[in-house]
Amino acid sequence: MAKARTDTFGARLASRAKVAGSVVCLGLDPRPEAHPLTSGLACAGATASAIERYLITVLDATHDLLACCKPQSAFFEALGLPGLEALAGVMNHARTLGLPVILDAKRGDIGSTAAAYAEAYLKGGDLAADALTVNLYLGLDTLEPFIAAAEANGRGLFVLVRTSNPGSADLQELTLEDGTPLYSKLADALTERAAGLPRDPDGYTSLGAVAGATHPAATAELRARLPHSLLLVPGYGAQGGNAADAAKAFDANGWGAVVNASRSLTYPPAAQAAGGLAEVAAAARAATLAMRDDLNRALGVS
Amino acid sequence: MAKARTDTFGARLASRAKVAGSVVCLGLDPRPEAHPLTSGLACAGATASAIERYLITVLDATHDLLACCKPQSAFFEALGLPGLEALAGVMNHARTLGLPVILDAKRGDIGSTAAAYAEAYLKGGDLAADALTVNLYLGLDTLEPFIAAAEANGRGLFVLVRTSNPGSADLQELTLEDGTPLYSKLADALTERAAGLPRDPDGYTSLGAVAGATHPAATAELRARLPHSLLLVPGYGAQGGNAADAAKAFDANGWGAVVNASRSLTYPPAAQAAGGLAEVAAAARAATLAMRDDLNRALGVS
Repeated sequence: MAKARTDTFGARLASRAKVAGSVVCLGLDPRPEAHPLTSGLACAGATASAIERYLITVLDATHDLLACCKPQSAFFEALGLPGLEALAGVMNHARTLGLPVILDAKRGDIGSTAAAYAEAYLKGGDLAADALTVNLYLGLDTLEPFIAAAEANGRGLFVLVRTSNPGSADLQELTLEDGTPLYSKLADALTERAAGLPRDPDGYTSLGAVAGATHPAATAELRARLPHSLLLVPGYGAQGGNAADAAKAFDANGWGAVVNASRSLTYPPAAQAAGGLAEVAAAARAATLAMRDDLNRALGVS
Repeated sequence: MAKARTDTFGARLASRAKVAGSVVCLGLDPRPEAHPLTSGLACAGATASAIERYLITVLDATHDLLACCKPQSAFFEALGLPGLEALAGVMNHARTLGLPVILDAKRGDIGSTAAAYAEAYLKGGDLAADALTVNLYLGLDTLEPFIAAAEANGRGLFVLVRTSNPGSADLQELTLEDGTPLYSKLADALTERAAGLPRDPDGYTSLGAVAGATHPAATAELRARLPHSLLLVPGYGAQGGNAADAAKAFDANGWGAVVNASRSLTYPPAAQAAGGLAEVAAAARAATLAMRDDLNRALGVS
């Protein structure tokens, strides 16, 4: 048995989660219209700067309660080039706080194009993250360039298996001729691929998966089927998943997953009214603390 | 029957293809290492500027032979923020040449996140294109924000159905319990959705599909099943598809598809040796002319 690796995304994430006593992943989905401080500005550049200030305020107010953060690339891309500069700034700030960054960009393409995405996000450029979400509809061979980059650079991957949206059943739950749903077939392929990868001290590899908290039975199944894959659990909070549902993503040691919430932490109701960044910071911290404790109770570690 | 719309992506593409006498889509996949003029530069900024110059040279040399162009977002993202500035510059230049731009970014996400991607690429920002490739693994509901933006702004979509890579069979050809392969199921859903959308004068809607030229039987099947969807056909040239294979994507009038080639046009062998932009321009033009004529012969319109 090879010695467990400690220079990996999984090891850094576990270490951070232990220090923070938290499995919370702070989702950073900038919605300019969601707060007066970031809406109604004159141009995309001004909006992107306001968004960057807002999100850095939330990170500063909550980082000691977090296992990691997850910027959603789409909302930054929607602001064009200034938005992508803000994304680089926010990811860099998270890094200075020692917070692992999972970039939720759901990239996926073939061969050398997948390698280009891996180069963009899993290496050293200004948009690089600690881990990336990836979409494998184009085939399992499209995973290899991402794995190569993750292994070479100590980064992580979260493959979309079972997502948290109402329509996720359209393709993911289609029944195959052998009676299994499509997402199970994909999970089996990931299990097999992960079995051959180096493990961190907790037994996890660079190859993780996304498992929506709104499908607790599927989450429990994925946890059992993917013993060497960290799970990223979206859907807690605004999308309707609760702590008991999310807890099904964890192993017997209370590890192996992080649980994401975005709107409920970044734009909590208490910060929705007009108010300054101090009010945003206080409301985001209160919401994050409540989520951390809610999850810890469900995991029996509070 | 509603009056056919002429302010759509499909109508603009058809008009351009007629003027150019061409169904060629020029793929713009910047690979800095592929040419001495763009490799070995000191920083990402210098590389991105050299790439932008190189691709604009190729566009200027070939635009009258093209139906459209297709920048591959991944290769620009790999160069970080300067790469995305180069992407904006290249797309803007194509627009000044009157050339429709299909941004190959294979985006896909749920609900409001999909809407953010649509905002980024199908509206008015600095990264906006005429059409976008999208991935529906997350579910058919994830298509709706893209359709809404395409309809509102006269843009187009190309949904990944059957791609050109060797591993595309892993998920796309899995057999479902009713005996149909997964990609056929997805095609049927698109057929149904396209039936209710406005049509351009040639009968096509904003909802197109990607159909790899390396699977000619599947391409012919998709052409028959998707009578109101334009097809984007990758795989010609470097990936092994030929003109006869690609021709299966066209309707009885010789329209309904564009055929993409990237490396073979942008980095043709004759331009690989050291040489200036004039040599690149001449070699790219010769390769594009040969591909246009090859396809026109296969379509019987030369």
